[in-house]
Amino acid sequence: MIKAYAASAPGAKLEPFEYEPGPLAHDDVEIDVESCGICHSDISMLDNDWGVTQYPFVPGHEVVGVVSAVGDNVSSVEIGQRVGLGWHSAYCNTCGTCQSGDHNLCSKAEITIGGRHGGFAEQVRAQASAVVPLPEGINPDSAGPMLCGGITVFNPLVQFGVSPTSKVGVIGIGGLGHIALQFLNAWGCEVTAFTRNTEEADELQKLGAHKVLNSSNAEELKAAARSFDLILSTVNVKLDWNAYVATLAPKGRLHFVGATLEPLGVNVFPLILGQRSVSGSPVGSPATISKMLQFADLHNIEPVTEYFSFDQVNEALDRMRNGKPHYRVVLKR
Amino acid sequence: MIKAYAASAPGAKLEPFEYEPGPLAHDDVEIDVESCGICHSDISMLDNDWGVTQYPFVPGHEVVGVVSAVGDNVSSVEIGQRVGLGWHSAYCNTCGTCQSGDHNLCSKAEITIGGRHGGFAEQVRAQASAVVPLPEGINPDSAGPMLCGGITVFNPLVQFGVSPTSKVGVIGIGGLGHIALQFLNAWGCEVTAFTRNTEEADELQKLGAHKVLNSSNAEELKAAARSFDLILSTVNVKLDWNAYVATLAPKGRLHFVGATLEPLGVNVFPLILGQRSVSGSPVGSPATISKMLQFADLHNIEPVTEYFSFDQVNEALDRMRNGKPHYRVVLKR
Repeated sequence: MIKAYAASAPGAKLEPFEYEPGPLAHDDVEIDVESCGICHSDISMLDNDWGVTQYPFVPGHEVVGVVSAVGDNVSSVEIGQRVGLGWHSAYCNTCGTCQSGDHNLCSKAEITIGGRHGGFAEQVRAQASAVVPLPEGINPDSAGPMLCGGITVFNPLVQFGVSPTSKVGVIGIGGLGHIALQFLNAWGCEVTAFTRNTEEADELQKLGAHKVLNSSNAEELKAAARSFDLILSTVNVKLDWNAYVATLAPKGRLHFVGATLEPLGVNVFPLILGQRSVSGSPVGSPATISKMLQFADLHNIEPVTEYFSFDQVNEALDRMRNGKPHYRVVLKR
Repeated sequence: MIKAYAASAPGAKLEPFEYEPGPLAHDDVEIDVESCGICHSDISMLDNDWGVTQYPFVPGHEVVGVVSAVGDNVSSVEIGQRVGLGWHSAYCNTCGTCQSGDHNLCSKAEITIGGRHGGFAEQVRAQASAVVPLPEGINPDSAGPMLCGGITVFNPLVQFGVSPTSKVGVIGIGGLGHIALQFLNAWGCEVTAFTRNTEEADELQKLGAHKVLNSSNAEELKAAARSFDLILSTVNVKLDWNAYVATLAPKGRLHFVGATLEPLGVNVFPLILGQRSVSGSPVGSPATISKMLQFADLHNIEPVTEYFSFDQVNEALDRMRNGKPHYRVVLKR
């Protein structure tokens, strides 16, 4: 039996829950969970915001732990090895998308907290292809948020071949954005943090921002016209996207990794005249997650986290819901 | 004096008009106009749709002709050489955008029919950097529409490094779209024409479409889910863009070269889940225009045109406004 924490209904408190995982599949790995980050999508799923949650529901998809068992076919990791597991727990591995290295875009990819039980548990299982070894130099306590939040902001840099000579802006300096500032700084880019709270400028600069732009000041936004090669938006609220498009340089891209539910009322003319793009992307493939962890190891990039023990899981969720955690919350033993 | 046809007010008939061009500037070229295509943007400017037109207004920015005079500094073309001139007549040539080869995105680029007189005339002048030699094998009578309509659909293939293995759809098979089908077929792509008029399927296939999709049939659109790497939209009306985004393959791009004035109500989730982009682009740089003409020469690509003489200019404009020209209208001597 695997001991976990589960909700029995939308928005319910998590309670101790046990389930029988059955025999370990040939291609699967079992991980003894050491720590697990909490992501906003855990809360969206817990609340059944997307209408697909199955209860009892065990959240958790930013898992760090040690391999405790491997299936017959598994040779990529071994028992005792420290690994990470993120949003996806399995891929078809045979479609053209997987075979092109884009497992994260596989239409049959399985989600760690959808149709299976997640990482708020003593153990979690996943297909070996979705389990990524953690480099020695990475702090395992704080690494959880890299596996969903971190890869979500790192992946576009790889996908679009972002040049270190680029000028990049980040909208929303929270769980994702504070990691984005660190990655972009190490990537060599000129980094601007868009914020409504310019009192935190010093802190944003410590995280890697070269500039801080007051996004509630229309004049400051206007003065930045035609300047950014890339803007990463991590927020899930509607902003005046046309004002941000106007700050893009020719060939610039406004890229969404935060999902706003309202349609983008973007005008076509500014896209045409400046050859600009508006785009989005989800988490990354296992290969890109590995690249990210190596890059983070080399450059000492680490999420800033608040820790709770697993039995404080409901307090931790409340902190995510009601507080402004600084910047990411992790459950650890 | 240069003899031309000009409108004296928004939407007015064109009438014979003469103007004194002054001494030829050091970096400029004068062209004896042999033919000039008519583009929808000539009509938008004639009607002052964009609020920037100066009258008397001489349309015409798809010019083919022979160099009749060159300024002191000009060495790129010589008197007697056949050349083309498109949407832009001059660039700053010194900004970072120009110096990166992206003259078409230069914020100081001058427009052939804005602040100067266009090609519905016996002569037209432009900076030598905007004047492109016409390859020997290109039919000068029909080449005019390549210089604005053609480059507008060719440019994205170069800009985004479109692979010949791509599956590409074209929305709107008119002046631009019928050239796009030809380019994409020669580029090696699998080409789909979206049309509401499936009776023209045979003709679209002759132009280069491998498949014809009935875009007024929601079921056909649905069946094409996740299939296109690129969709080029040449129309200037609002369509159900989210239905088209759903037909994009992972990493696919919906690209606008036709300008709809209504904002794009595109949803963010499908962009994120499929790493899809929505983008736009204008005409191309002189270097890309040259590449296009060489590519068209090699592959016998030619706009399908209807001809009018210059003194029939008002009939020709009426044909554009009220008819469905097949596919592009050209004035020629």
